[in-house]
Amino acid sequence: MRFNHFHLDELAQLVQGELVGQSDLVLKGLSSLEQAQPHHIAFVIGDKYLKEALNSKAGALIISAELQSQLPNHKNFIIVPNPYLAFAILTHSFEIKVTVRGIERTAQISPSAIIADDAYIGHYVVIGEDCVVGNNTIIQSHVKIDDGVELGKDCFIDSHVTLTGQAKIGDRVRIHANTVIGGEGFGFASYQGKWNRIAQLGSVRIGNDVRIGSNCSVDRGALDDTILENGVIIDNLVQIAHNVHVGENTAMAAKCGIAGSTTIGKNCIFAGGVGVVGHIKIADKVTVTGMSMVSKSISEAGSYSSGTGQFETNQWKRTVVRLRQLADVPLTKLVKKIDHMQAQIESIESTLKSRK
Amino acid sequence: MRFNHFHLDELAQLVQGELVGQSDLVLKGLSSLEQAQPHHIAFVIGDKYLKEALNSKAGALIISAELQSQLPNHKNFIIVPNPYLAFAILTHSFEIKVTVRGIERTAQISPSAIIADDAYIGHYVVIGEDCVVGNNTIIQSHVKIDDGVELGKDCFIDSHVTLTGQAKIGDRVRIHANTVIGGEGFGFASYQGKWNRIAQLGSVRIGNDVRIGSNCSVDRGALDDTILENGVIIDNLVQIAHNVHVGENTAMAAKCGIAGSTTIGKNCIFAGGVGVVGHIKIADKVTVTGMSMVSKSISEAGSYSSGTGQFETNQWKRTVVRLRQLADVPLTKLVKKIDHMQAQIESIESTLKSRK
Amino acid sequence: MRFNHFHLDELAQLVQGELVGQSDLVLKGLSSLEQAQPHHIAFVIGDKYLKEALNSKAGALIISAELQSQLPNHKNFIIVPNPYLAFAILTHSFEIKVTVRGIERTAQISPSAIIADDAYIGHYVVIGEDCVVGNNTIIQSHVKIDDGVELGKDCFIDSHVTLTGQAKIGDRVRIHANTVIGGEGFGFASYQGKWNRIAQLGSVRIGNDVRIGSNCSVDRGALDDTILENGVIIDNLVQIAHNVHVGENTAMAAKCGIAGSTTIGKNCIFAGGVGVVGHIKIADKVTVTGMSMVSKSISEAGSYSSGTGQFETNQWKRTVVRLRQLADVPLTKLVKKIDHMQAQIESIESTLKSRK
Repeated sequence: MRFNHFHLDELAQLVQGELVGQSDLVLKGLSSLEQAQPHHIAFVIGDKYLKEALNSKAGALIISAELQSQLPNHKNFIIVPNPYLAFAILTHSFEIKVTVRGIERTAQISPSAIIADDAYIGHYVVIGEDCVVGNNTIIQSHVKIDDGVELGKDCFIDSHVTLTGQAKIGDRVRIHANTVIGGEGFGFASYQGKWNRIAQLGSVRIGNDVRIGSNCSVDRGALDDTILENGVIIDNLVQIAHNVHVGENTAMAAKCGIAGSTTIGKNCIFAGGVGVVGHIKIADKVTVTGMSMVSKSISEAGSYSSGTGQFETNQWKRTVVRLRQLADVPLTKLVKKIDHMQAQIESIESTLKSRK
Repeated sequence: MRFNHFHLDELAQLVQGELVGQSDLVLKGLSSLEQAQPHHIAFVIGDKYLKEALNSKAGALIISAELQSQLPNHKNFIIVPNPYLAFAILTHSFEIKVTVRGIERTAQISPSAIIADDAYIGHYVVIGEDCVVGNNTIIQSHVKIDDGVELGKDCFIDSHVTLTGQAKIGDRVRIHANTVIGGEGFGFASYQGKWNRIAQLGSVRIGNDVRIGSNCSVDRGALDDTILENGVIIDNLVQIAHNVHVGENTAMAAKCGIAGSTTIGKNCIFAGGVGVVGHIKIADKVTVTGMSMVSKSISEAGSYSSGTGQFETNQWKRTVVRLRQLADVPLTKLVKKIDHMQAQIESIESTLKSRK
Repeated sequence: MRFNHFHLDELAQLVQGELVGQSDLVLKGLSSLEQAQPHHIAFVIGDKYLKEALNSKAGALIISAELQSQLPNHKNFIIVPNPYLAFAILTHSFEIKVTVRGIERTAQISPSAIIADDAYIGHYVVIGEDCVVGNNTIIQSHVKIDDGVELGKDCFIDSHVTLTGQAKIGDRVRIHANTVIGGEGFGFASYQGKWNRIAQLGSVRIGNDVRIGSNCSVDRGALDDTILENGVIIDNLVQIAHNVHVGENTAMAAKCGIAGSTTIGKNCIFAGGVGVVGHIKIADKVTVTGMSMVSKSISEAGSYSSGTGQFETNQWKRTVVRLRQLADVPLTKLVKKIDHMQAQIESIESTLKSRK
């Protein structure tokens, strides 16, 4: 096992921050404020963490200029305008990376596949005909790369991933364990009560800097391709059906599911468990809150939701009883009727007054 | 890589369609109308695609008789009563199939397993004791077939599938990558605050012509078997719990979950993300719309739904506030009360009139 | 294939039950009442199963004392106070267990890994640097145990599981096929419209007697660890995000998803498909009903729910129309207004009466 060590000034340089304190302080890890020890660096991303920062044993802090002065008991800082971004950058320094290169002797690689010299191909990887694996790409053990699949450079493909359907994958793409890219889309023609399978002939195209979590399924298209544009990030257990098109830098949290032929814009954010029906279009910069269902196209940026919110179960049961009555209660008409009745009552009262 | 080429008359014969145009036209692929090139055949499945068809560069079109006359700029057609079904049939001709047969030398197969001579067993497949693999069945790389599992003929099992729990699988079954069949059901007896595992002794029985997507889990039964009848089709990331029984030709889209011991009828259609509680019965021909929860038995064919529909988030928040008040608003009584009040008002008004 | 046979008195002894009938009756399996044959033992867990028990062909019944007398046609019983717990215990006797020990010759194991002599390491398993596999632990085929992962004793890890992120796993832990433990958490810092990956440096800690189903994803922490305490049981296709903490003996049914940094108490029960947002706290002994969304902290034990319940689709559509009107209907005010109007009407009526 390898561990990474840095001096404080090295870390400050990596994030172009201002160093305050002991430049040769040795730091062996990033840590949360709470768990930090003197050989750790931690980060402070707002007022609300000041108290925790005061009590932290961290050897150094990544912090903004305005908050630094409020931590007199600390001596070592890296001052940056955006501590969270600086933290993100520094995680890469402390990450234990796969450094081995070359092809493990147990890998099965078709003679027609082209594997870059500085790629890593792990144990029991199987690579089919006409595949391409680009420079510095890491393929972990047990990955299956089926015929005609191409991978760019600097990718990371974790164990038990299945790449099939002649998927074409860009550079710096990360695909986590047990995910399936290019599996057959769910296409059937119903005829006389039976399902006739439509063999899926399209493929999957994945841009650069895409990240896909573990246990995801991204299906190949029926005729045209399923497409994930550059910079798309996807969490675990997400379903992307055939012919879906996801725009640049859109993010999907775990357990989202996008049905077939739906087009999603750029820079959208879908919280966990969101479902989107098929054959619709969603604009750029659309946020969808957790577990919502998107059942029709969205043409304007903004936030969208569904669901009832959280109830104590007995209260929820009473609410559901009312919901079941709701269909037969013409709410809008009722409000008008009540207003009209009030006017009538007032008119009656004034009549009565005048006749006193 | 192999590509498939056909003459137009060959394709017409495959779907028993009427050929119009150049019988020896060479077609190298099926395509969408939009992406088609002159060496592609495309299909038109209704009036609404006529404009796209007019502008398509496709070399030939699969079409119904009544629409063909409206495309004077096209010359080559296959005329059929059901173009979508014809398209489904032709996808099989253009599909690149696994043609290799035999057992890869890296496969580990128990001496007691029976493997058909014309099956294909891929690299690093592990097959346990007393397993059976039928004629012309394709087992892709890294599949695990645990002791006592039996597979019929003409099946396709993609990479990283785990077949365990002594599952018995019929003919022409397709199971996509990274799916688990026969995993242990989730059965525990609670006793003094702890969970006592119930070892699952039942199995899984899967009929003929069943299709299961990628990353699915179909658990073995507790005592009796979990059963998927003939013709069931299941999309990706679907959970079928122990002792579920799914009737013939029922279809489930991605991310459905069926809890234990539930029985589902024939020819049902569950849209994506549907959840069904345990120990209930669902009739034949029941449709459930996307992301609905089925919490009680359904005894009549028809369509069922739940959820609130899609809202802009601020509107949704206001709606949820009202929902929280709803439990304490006796809607039906209120409507009656309003009607009664209106009658009172009318009676008062008529009294006032009579006393004028 | 091995089968297990027992005499009735052996089984009675295993559950400390009272034997009634033929002590040397040979029993070859546990069965449901309905499917049981004379060589099977079945169990009766309440009045409602009495009729089925009367008609059952089971050779022996596990039953409580008060119910036994109501089954005069049966002769062989094991009488216990808690038949369901006794059944759970006996399933372990009839389970076909992995009995082989040692390391298959195709396993790839780093020289720095420590593997107990009586562990089983299946075909094509890959074990990295500094890993530990404890006594009597079973690692099925194709499992990947990445550098620095440690497993205790008596564990069962099924095929295609990926253990990474230096996860530390306790004793008697069962992890079912194709699950990923220690995958990278979904952490990104947004900067100028792009996502900057936060390399995840925390790990996963799993206690003793934890059970995780198939196709689950349990992510490693960002800095601190993701933690599953002793006795946690998790069904299939469940997502546990980075830095989640799940308390002892909490149970989660299939398709639950817990977002990052959420803390869940002890002895909670989440039904299938429950989603929990990130950064909240849930108390001990909280039950959440199926497919509910938990969007804020829960500080009191009890049951919680969300959703609309199940509707016939046309009724549902009418309900959704009303729901869309609900935001603009001030329900509570309306009720007060109606009450006020009624008071006015009554006052008017009494005025009219007095002036008669």
